[in-house]
Amino acid sequence: MTSNLLNRQVAFAARPDGEPTAETFFIREVPVTALESGQILCRNLMVSVDPYLRLKMYDRESYTPPLEFGETIPGRSVAQVVESAAPEFKAGDLVAIQGGWQEYEIVKARHAERVDPALANPVSWLGALGMTGFTAYGGLLSVGQPKEGETVVVSAAAGAVGLLVGQVARQVGCRVVGIAGGSEKCARVVSEFGFDACVDYRAADFEQQLTEATPEGVDVYFDNVGGEIAAAVTRRLNTFARVAICGLISQYNGQSDSDPKAMEEYLRWILVRRLTIRGFIVYDLHKNHPEFTEVMSGWLREGKVREVFQRYDGFEQIVPAFLGMLSGKNFGKSIVRIAEPS
Amino acid sequence: MTSNLLNRQVAFAARPDGEPTAETFFIREVPVTALESGQILCRNLMVSVDPYLRLKMYDRESYTPPLEFGETIPGRSVAQVVESAAPEFKAGDLVAIQGGWQEYEIVKARHAERVDPALANPVSWLGALGMTGFTAYGGLLSVGQPKEGETVVVSAAAGAVGLLVGQVARQVGCRVVGIAGGSEKCARVVSEFGFDACVDYRAADFEQQLTEATPEGVDVYFDNVGGEIAAAVTRRLNTFARVAICGLISQYNGQSDSDPKAMEEYLRWILVRRLTIRGFIVYDLHKNHPEFTEVMSGWLREGKVREVFQRYDGFEQIVPAFLGMLSGKNFGKSIVRIAEPS
Repeated sequence: MTSNLLNRQVAFAARPDGEPTAETFFIREVPVTALESGQILCRNLMVSVDPYLRLKMYDRESYTPPLEFGETIPGRSVAQVVESAAPEFKAGDLVAIQGGWQEYEIVKARHAERVDPALANPVSWLGALGMTGFTAYGGLLSVGQPKEGETVVVSAAAGAVGLLVGQVARQVGCRVVGIAGGSEKCARVVSEFGFDACVDYRAADFEQQLTEATPEGVDVYFDNVGGEIAAAVTRRLNTFARVAICGLISQYNGQSDSDPKAMEEYLRWILVRRLTIRGFIVYDLHKNHPEFTEVMSGWLREGKVREVFQRYDGFEQIVPAFLGMLSGKNFGKSIVRIAEPS
Repeated sequence: MTSNLLNRQVAFAARPDGEPTAETFFIREVPVTALESGQILCRNLMVSVDPYLRLKMYDRESYTPPLEFGETIPGRSVAQVVESAAPEFKAGDLVAIQGGWQEYEIVKARHAERVDPALANPVSWLGALGMTGFTAYGGLLSVGQPKEGETVVVSAAAGAVGLLVGQVARQVGCRVVGIAGGSEKCARVVSEFGFDACVDYRAADFEQQLTEATPEGVDVYFDNVGGEIAAAVTRRLNTFARVAICGLISQYNGQSDSDPKAMEEYLRWILVRRLTIRGFIVYDLHKNHPEFTEVMSGWLREGKVREVFQRYDGFEQIVPAFLGMLSGKNFGKSIVRIAEPS
């Protein structure tokens, strides 16, 4: 049956110089290969577009290997099993997989996570219950170690991870201050997601606003952006504050906004304020939080944590979704629906 | 009795612009005041000169408040009790105190630590058994968290703290690589103190030597200097490496050797290698290590840890000792003997 299927894929065409464009990618069609024992053939229903992909477009060492030319762009997906050669799944089942930017993918059954629609909306497996949610939850709790009554600041607060970081910090009992781009985003972060404040980094008086929003300083900074925003928050950090470095969006396209004294000043501040700065990626933390899915799905059902998706429709919208997400114009988690469940 | 005593003091004259000089200080004589109940009058036998004092000469926020003009320069000392108004000590007892750069000091008995010559040579209370030793021991174990078989790098390896860091790391079973200035210092660090290697940061091929000395990368970096040395070690750090920032000597005189991209590159590396960077000062760690004095004095007696002192003699040598220590020409812990015990 599967031998008749054609699989459209978005593949890597050329390393971008600065911002990626449509020319960074190309689309191709390949036949779906035969299933082997223990594998499942999955049809991607919705795929995730993530900032870390920009890092993979550089030909240099990172925590994730560089993309090869012609490689299908990777990404998490929620998919439906089309055909199964494994006892764990049957056709029709919903799974969360490393499905990539394509219509079909074959994976080992043990690499697929069951999506249980009774627990939450399937799209949540790309959001609060997926890598995005675990990055926010595990990173904040394990690396940031917030305590009740402390002040937590998160950058890219209107992004997929940032919105969840703030809401998890609220559950811990923290004062939560977001940083986002534009007054409209900031207003939504506060009014719809319960942040105590959200500061617009594009505002001329950004640093003064940040100071006013953090009257008792900052105990935890969850950093998604790096650059001058990180430098400004660093100046607000209290003694013994923790910084969880999750992403450095401001650097992803190669812009530099560091000044010559910044490194020296940063080291000095780490010493003076006895800071702990720690970089992490989501894979480092899984064993720390076996309770994650149960806790987070409970918060979703109880309305204590809200998700918002920037939805795109159609296979050909994958690249525009990615470019939109990188440009900072999206709100919440960016996903693309490419098929309906059967 | 005490009312007849005159006390010579080294006090702060002027904030230095760059390196401190003799003009940074002045010497004065003041009468010793009367003892109050619970206090002891101590005669300083030997005083410590420490790099952190340079930080106190800036009029800016640090972990220690700026020196005020006319303030007696602070520092640890080993002293002898001249007169006691407290039951814990009697005249003739040896104590380690915050005695400062002066001949006499009155302290509360509860702020004095008893020096037990049966445990170690009294001078060790300014070295391995004092703040210097605890900085090395507590900082390495609590912040660096070295494990057997890992590689530990320490900068200012021929300095008071650095020599001890390396020897404590050897006790943990680590490969230990020092960084020091000049081939003679480096040779001594290896031959007399058991470091596996010591790299001369002044060498033209410093980075290559560092790479060769750390064939399996670096798991723990105990940083006393910051600047370009820190940047070079950072490039050698393994995934999940820990950096303990103890001091930033390279910055203390206001030199800047950061380049514009350094901050950005540093943050990127923290993320890519999932580093933990933590600044600490010795006071943060005391409660972690109640075993310190017993363990360290045992190592000293068994010859597992060796100390070396750069000794100066005479009250008027305090300032030259401090300037010599800052200039990097001293080896080991710099102390000044200013009186003989009675």
